[in-house]
Amino acid sequence: MNKSFWVSSVVLALGCGLAAEALAQTNPNQLIAQRKGAMNLQAKYVGPLLGMALGRIPYDAGTALRNADYLDILSQLPWDDFDPSTAGAPERRTQAKDDIYKDPAKFKAKSNELRTAVQKLTSAAHAGNRDAANAAALGVGRACNSCHEAFATFEYRFKVE
Amino acid sequence: MNKSFWVSSVVLALGCGLAAEALAQTNPNQLIAQRKGAMNLQAKYVGPLLGMALGRIPYDAGTALRNADYLDILSQLPWDDFDPSTAGAPERRTQAKDDIYKDPAKFKAKSNELRTAVQKLTSAAHAGNRDAANAAALGVGRACNSCHEAFATFEYRFKVE
Repeated sequence: MNKSFWVSSVVLALGCGLAAEALAQTNPNQLIAQRKGAMNLQAKYVGPLLGMALGRIPYDAGTALRNADYLDILSQLPWDDFDPSTAGAPERRTQAKDDIYKDPAKFKAKSNELRTAVQKLTSAAHAGNRDAANAAALGVGRACNSCHEAFATFEYRFKVE
Repeated sequence: MNKSFWVSSVVLALGCGLAAEALAQTNPNQLIAQRKGAMNLQAKYVGPLLGMALGRIPYDAGTALRNADYLDILSQLPWDDFDPSTAGAPERRTQAKDDIYKDPAKFKAKSNELRTAVQKLTSAAHAGNRDAANAAALGVGRACNSCHEAFATFEYRFKVE
């Protein structure tokens, strides 16, 4: 977090109006930082779920439930920060391809796939259904990978099998 | 998001066990990225609330409710990533002071202040109480500032009056 982030955040708070208007006037680097934040946090909480689903670590129902609930919120957060104003940013700032802004309908469909997969996970976790939760966690991982394959420049993917 | 992040994320998923064990073995730079993510996202959603509370932008009950609910989750996420293994990181990676690890009780108290402030906000937003929500939003901003004054090296703060 750097000073310019906080300056632009104060500007956002004080002068930019509500969501859509704020977005249009927000520093592209801030938008990138925000969406990377959402991606990093999704990875933080999906990682242990995949480890459990693959049998690499012991299943823990409390962790499954907590992480599912966190992901239910986190998977809503990145999308409005993929604004065309961030296209053309250097790779050290973002590994999101500019194809996102060339085919927004496909990108929206991929984000919806993730939301659907996360909703299956939260349903299974709240029902206390271990097998369904593990299967749904792998579905979440596949949805991450599917979107990254289409729209990210980096090569690593979650292991889901 | 860089390749090493994804590698360490896969390692986390596959080999590190549940939360505490995983934390101890996670790359400090990944922990820093995760907690910065949570901070960036908290700023994203508290910013418009402060703008509304200060009368700089029109009050919108739907935005207040949504952002309060997001903050209720987001304000739980950064803390376990403030691990002593991240002490001594260069300022370009983190502006968190190492004092966090010298006085963890004080840091914990500051994080609890934020959680209490956010809970007041969510209660007010769910009750549809505009005045209380605006007052609570300023309380959230003050809690952010209070912790940053004690434990962050950068000088900018949210404007809360």
